[in-house]
Amino acid sequence: MVAEIIAVGSELLTPYRMDTNSLELTEKLMELGIRVNGKCVVGDNEEDIARAIRASAVRAQIIIITGGLGPTNDDRTREGIAKAFKLKLIFREDIHTWIKERYKQLTKMDPPDNLARMAFVPEGAEIIENEVGTAPGLWLEVKEGALYVIAFPGPPPEWRPMFEIIKGKLEKFGNHHFTRRVLRVAGLRESQVEEKISFFYTGVKNPQVSILASAEDVQVHIWARAREKDEADRLAGEMKEKFLKALGDNIYTQNDEPLEKVVGELLRKNGKTLAVAESCSGGLLSHRITNIPGSSDYFLMGAITYSNEAKIKILGVKREDIEKYGAVSEPVAAQMAEGVRKLAGADFGIGITGIAGPGGGTPEKPVGLVYIGISWEGGTEVKRFRFPGNRIQVKTYTTSYALDMLRRKLL
Amino acid sequence: MVAEIIAVGSELLTPYRMDTNSLELTEKLMELGIRVNGKCVVGDNEEDIARAIRASAVRAQIIIITGGLGPTNDDRTREGIAKAFKLKLIFREDIHTWIKERYKQLTKMDPPDNLARMAFVPEGAEIIENEVGTAPGLWLEVKEGALYVIAFPGPPPEWRPMFEIIKGKLEKFGNHHFTRRVLRVAGLRESQVEEKISFFYTGVKNPQVSILASAEDVQVHIWARAREKDEADRLAGEMKEKFLKALGDNIYTQNDEPLEKVVGELLRKNGKTLAVAESCSGGLLSHRITNIPGSSDYFLMGAITYSNEAKIKILGVKREDIEKYGAVSEPVAAQMAEGVRKLAGADFGIGITGIAGPGGGTPEKPVGLVYIGISWEGGTEVKRFRFPGNRIQVKTYTTSYALDMLRRKLL
Repeated sequence: MVAEIIAVGSELLTPYRMDTNSLELTEKLMELGIRVNGKCVVGDNEEDIARAIRASAVRAQIIIITGGLGPTNDDRTREGIAKAFKLKLIFREDIHTWIKERYKQLTKMDPPDNLARMAFVPEGAEIIENEVGTAPGLWLEVKEGALYVIAFPGPPPEWRPMFEIIKGKLEKFGNHHFTRRVLRVAGLRESQVEEKISFFYTGVKNPQVSILASAEDVQVHIWARAREKDEADRLAGEMKEKFLKALGDNIYTQNDEPLEKVVGELLRKNGKTLAVAESCSGGLLSHRITNIPGSSDYFLMGAITYSNEAKIKILGVKREDIEKYGAVSEPVAAQMAEGVRKLAGADFGIGITGIAGPGGGTPEKPVGLVYIGISWEGGTEVKRFRFPGNRIQVKTYTTSYALDMLRRKLL
Repeated sequence: MVAEIIAVGSELLTPYRMDTNSLELTEKLMELGIRVNGKCVVGDNEEDIARAIRASAVRAQIIIITGGLGPTNDDRTREGIAKAFKLKLIFREDIHTWIKERYKQLTKMDPPDNLARMAFVPEGAEIIENEVGTAPGLWLEVKEGALYVIAFPGPPPEWRPMFEIIKGKLEKFGNHHFTRRVLRVAGLRESQVEEKISFFYTGVKNPQVSILASAEDVQVHIWARAREKDEADRLAGEMKEKFLKALGDNIYTQNDEPLEKVVGELLRKNGKTLAVAESCSGGLLSHRITNIPGSSDYFLMGAITYSNEAKIKILGVKREDIEKYGAVSEPVAAQMAEGVRKLAGADFGIGITGIAGPGGGTPEKPVGLVYIGISWEGGTEVKRFRFPGNRIQVKTYTTSYALDMLRRKLL
């Protein structure tokens, strides 16, 4: 059985809102072994909703609709379902009573008249109780079990518990098991990752492999499909093993977690502390490190020394070196790393200086040029990088490569 | 004329990728006065593509398809269009020659055989030249101008210039003008904004007003629709004037730009400099400030003093005050603001201390409690906040409220 998802809501057809429910629903359905074959967004219009349902009914055996179940005149999903299958809408007094009670309980106010709209149900449909809001969901069996139509309210806090309620019924429709594996890679560009592993997956349909690259990292996603869980696990596992060998310690995690978390755990495990001095990354490295709960255990301080004076006064960078080599240079990165390590009394110091752009570049020192220094008890090491992209991308690449340099020191 | 958008790509039916092209296309179409009536995602399957096109053809006069135009066997958009309208696919030697030349030019390599697939064109279709990649786009007039089908490659850098090429042809189909106004608000919560302005727009269909709230800010979007530009401008303008009065200087911009840019411009205009000391926000404030190109003109330094020792040693916070009041307290926020201002020799200093969570909260000092201090020549002011949400949201709220405190000082 395959599913299609229909999101109802005119606001989802503007450039500023998008249907994200379908992503989460897709994941939940895949976990049940149900493949999503297509998805649509339609406005708050009875005719459009009905047409989308009829179109999906040709291709899918399960149709999940989100949105359009509220009490206002704009909420037309009930009417759309009824129209699609030429069903009557029946007013259910018991549901109306329940809705009014629920409304009083949630708002401590008298229920308005328009709540009655939510008590209309296409004939034959069952109600899915809403534990969070007032709009009930719908479960409708059409054509003697050849098609199931499920309608949820739009807000995730409302539909998530409702999905749990019907999960048991959907489970028996799943005829596939999906196994997903994610490898996250640091220190390599997308094309380098592809070069190392494309041989293994080119032309292979199952598992399906996709490489997702951003300034933060390169992720390798493996999806295997099989009738049995063991078989899907085996297919995904075999592909993963090949990638593990090909990519080695460039893989920083097999657990789909951010680099700053992996580096934080390594610091904690080794009982080491960290301080960072940032210029072009402007605080993003500190921000990423401190996004991890408990980072105060190993992160002592960050110094965003944007001005030369701050580099000299706070970190002890030598004025003559800034004058001789420039603020964006190997000696300055080294002295920043050493300076902040000393200042904070930390085991590791990171120093970053570069040109994030869009302005400030020269032929000798172009936009994207970054020096990253790392200082520890045993010495100081500086690497030179040239990162692509806009200001934010250069900042992001910089922090990921800095974290990765530290990670390799801690391995 | 109304449009529908179809995104082709099996990867867009997984939980990890989504069709974002449609948002940008919707905006571009609205600018031309063309409303988007619905959108769909389908997999790399000829039959599904054809069905989606036929379904859209019932409702819309313009169908824009993205993706599926590449050279591999998975790329089935050409076949899907041909199938939808029972058209032949014709091999065009001239296009094949162009594609091979382009490939050589881009890659310096010999063109592979499969490029030939991209030279097949549904009969009657015109080519839209691709200035960036090798896959040409398609423009097809069906039913004597009652329907236009446009196909673009998936990557935005490829389809954006192609859209510009056909823009002139689409322009004449637009029968509405849309005017959009955005007001961005700081220092108020979503419910407070609603309370102040909902009276003006409740029940109003045109302009359409939506409030988008995040930890960063609250945005009020106004969309007005009319046959003539002047009329749409007038409708949007009148609503905007009401909101300007009701929200006053809580509105930080009418130009849809981030708060850190507005504050940066105020600092620059006033010839003032800034230094910040962050604890719970962990570098995010410095990161946001330095996301603005040219921020080095007014941003002197950030100190992420996560440990108490760093607060004492670098910023001169009094040890006895940390012991007496705790690190998360009004005196510590004040001393951090004053300390970093002095250290950097800046006109303004901001000091932030709080509990971002999820751990570290107590009944007296719960998660989300944040003190923000601001120090200037004339004195020091500290405000106490209690922000909702997870760690990242608390960090984001904190930085927005800190920027807003500074903004109000600079007005």
